[in-house]
Amino acid sequence: MNDTKILMGHGSGGMMTHELIEGLFLRYFDNLWLRQQSDSVLLKLSGRNLAFTTDSFVVDPVFFPGGNIGKLAVAGTVNDLSVSGAVPRYLSVGFVLEEGLLLEHLEIIVKSMAQEAAKAGIFIVTGDTKVVEKGKCDKIFINTSGVGEVKEEYFAISSGEKIQPGDKIIINGGIAEHGMAIMAARNDLNISTEILSDCASLNGLIKEILKVSGNVRFMRDPTRGGLATVLSELVQKKPFGIRIDEKKLTVEDAVRGICEMLGFDPLYVANEGKVVIVVPASDAASVVEAMKKHPLGRKTAVIGEVTAEHPGKAWLETSVGGKRMIEMLSGQQLPRIC
Amino acid sequence: MNDTKILMGHGSGGMMTHELIEGLFLRYFDNLWLRQQSDSVLLKLSGRNLAFTTDSFVVDPVFFPGGNIGKLAVAGTVNDLSVSGAVPRYLSVGFVLEEGLLLEHLEIIVKSMAQEAAKAGIFIVTGDTKVVEKGKCDKIFINTSGVGEVKEEYFAISSGEKIQPGDKIIINGGIAEHGMAIMAARNDLNISTEILSDCASLNGLIKEILKVSGNVRFMRDPTRGGLATVLSELVQKKPFGIRIDEKKLTVEDAVRGICEMLGFDPLYVANEGKVVIVVPASDAASVVEAMKKHPLGRKTAVIGEVTAEHPGKAWLETSVGGKRMIEMLSGQQLPRIC
Repeated sequence: MNDTKILMGHGSGGMMTHELIEGLFLRYFDNLWLRQQSDSVLLKLSGRNLAFTTDSFVVDPVFFPGGNIGKLAVAGTVNDLSVSGAVPRYLSVGFVLEEGLLLEHLEIIVKSMAQEAAKAGIFIVTGDTKVVEKGKCDKIFINTSGVGEVKEEYFAISSGEKIQPGDKIIINGGIAEHGMAIMAARNDLNISTEILSDCASLNGLIKEILKVSGNVRFMRDPTRGGLATVLSELVQKKPFGIRIDEKKLTVEDAVRGICEMLGFDPLYVANEGKVVIVVPASDAASVVEAMKKHPLGRKTAVIGEVTAEHPGKAWLETSVGGKRMIEMLSGQQLPRIC
Repeated sequence: MNDTKILMGHGSGGMMTHELIEGLFLRYFDNLWLRQQSDSVLLKLSGRNLAFTTDSFVVDPVFFPGGNIGKLAVAGTVNDLSVSGAVPRYLSVGFVLEEGLLLEHLEIIVKSMAQEAAKAGIFIVTGDTKVVEKGKCDKIFINTSGVGEVKEEYFAISSGEKIQPGDKIIINGGIAEHGMAIMAARNDLNISTEILSDCASLNGLIKEILKVSGNVRFMRDPTRGGLATVLSELVQKKPFGIRIDEKKLTVEDAVRGICEMLGFDPLYVANEGKVVIVVPASDAASVVEAMKKHPLGRKTAVIGEVTAEHPGKAWLETSVGGKRMIEMLSGQQLPRIC
């Protein structure tokens, strides 16, 4: 790390975040669990398997079309547990509140958290509240940490170590909706759109997937850094490549429009209700069918496949027949979208 | 709650915090675990007992005599698990960093966290980093959540439900050191003292206590709101009272001096390396002896006892023979001491 100060890019989820993790956090905290570097860490406690995860939310604005920081904080941690193959059970919540925050705003946020927790079937069991002086934080920051139950057989899902050439890449709908809903909601842009954040708890959908396939090779929710970051992380130092078929990838018209207007590549824009799944080709049809039956999976599609060629690379086959490499995000694209 | 806005007092750990918890968080999140309202919640996961806790740290200044926000974040969560009778095992860490934070400062903090984790014998296994624009947080906020193993027989320790008249109240040394170290470190006060924060992980000391007594009735770390808040919470709606003998209570001279100068009552000032223990009179001598052998327990003393008289009240018998009721902190005494 050549920088001497923290920059916005260190929070991007892209290259600079990786440098910070590897150059600082892993260097000092190093242990075999942290080295898993997955959405949830898989542990043993009293001889049983346990999934454990944490996420802090600093989204700006706090209220946005399709959700608010509270709903996002619950769904985000539920999803981090779920994509590791865990059944989310309990959440903690840590609030940092800015002096002067309206209690009615806090109540809306707390109510959303309770509703999302009920929907996901999990419980908020422990909490903490700190208040800082006006101007020392931005309205409200929320940390949620979560624990869940996980079967030994799912330990490989987070690492993707069982992925094979020929496996199919599936996603449960259009991309870039959360990030663009947030951008459009920022007051200074004066944009009027109908884009809703896709923010949702995915544990119900993932349960259906695991019911129909015992061979799920990988799952991850493409949040900060978007689909591109998940794919480029996944192929890193791996003996396979990933080819994505641009035609199969859904980007809703309104989302594409605002991406073009603001100069964002939807591949790099955050989602909060999407999951990328890798399954053997033989299981793809039944997984897609099961997902399409779920309210959060109606637009599920196979968007690409794992290849033996170009190991370590992910690329897009464009609709005009070209090839575009998918690299990790360098620097900061969209600050504070979660 | 009659207020319409969040005030500093809502983060005090005293009456206003209780009102916020009961009027808002418990109302919406209500479940049997949250109602435990203890330092760590005790859960079942895959049929085994689990202790789970969360704490956000926003201390100002970030560096202070005796520690920094990183050491505090590790020790604080280790202690919340330990006082519930749990063996702390794994921690998560969520950083919210302000753009422009010096990387060398972050490195000192991370290094302290690693050192304190090693000292406490626990592992930091999962994490998250967010960055907000300059001016949108105050240098660094840290959330640590933790999980630990806990025996069924210790489930009653957090609630104090087994406390009996005649039981002895023990503490492992002088009070108010952390809060006064923080106050003295604030630049605007220009105070020069030798007070060090007592910030330390107490799991080693607590292990020794549980070794010599199978009858520990209650443990809690008197952090925000100080010893007074622990005692007044403990007697609330209970069929017993608590009498504290002022002569037995240690307040180091430097701490007393600065408390008097600034007008603070040491009973209400935060500690970060102290534990209040209630044991049957028959076990008190052996517990004190074991504690005195531990580096963090050299100044252990029996400071009072549980009484049948004045149920629901806690009071101080002053050195001149008077009686002073110990009430819960109303409003904010010391903002951002943890």
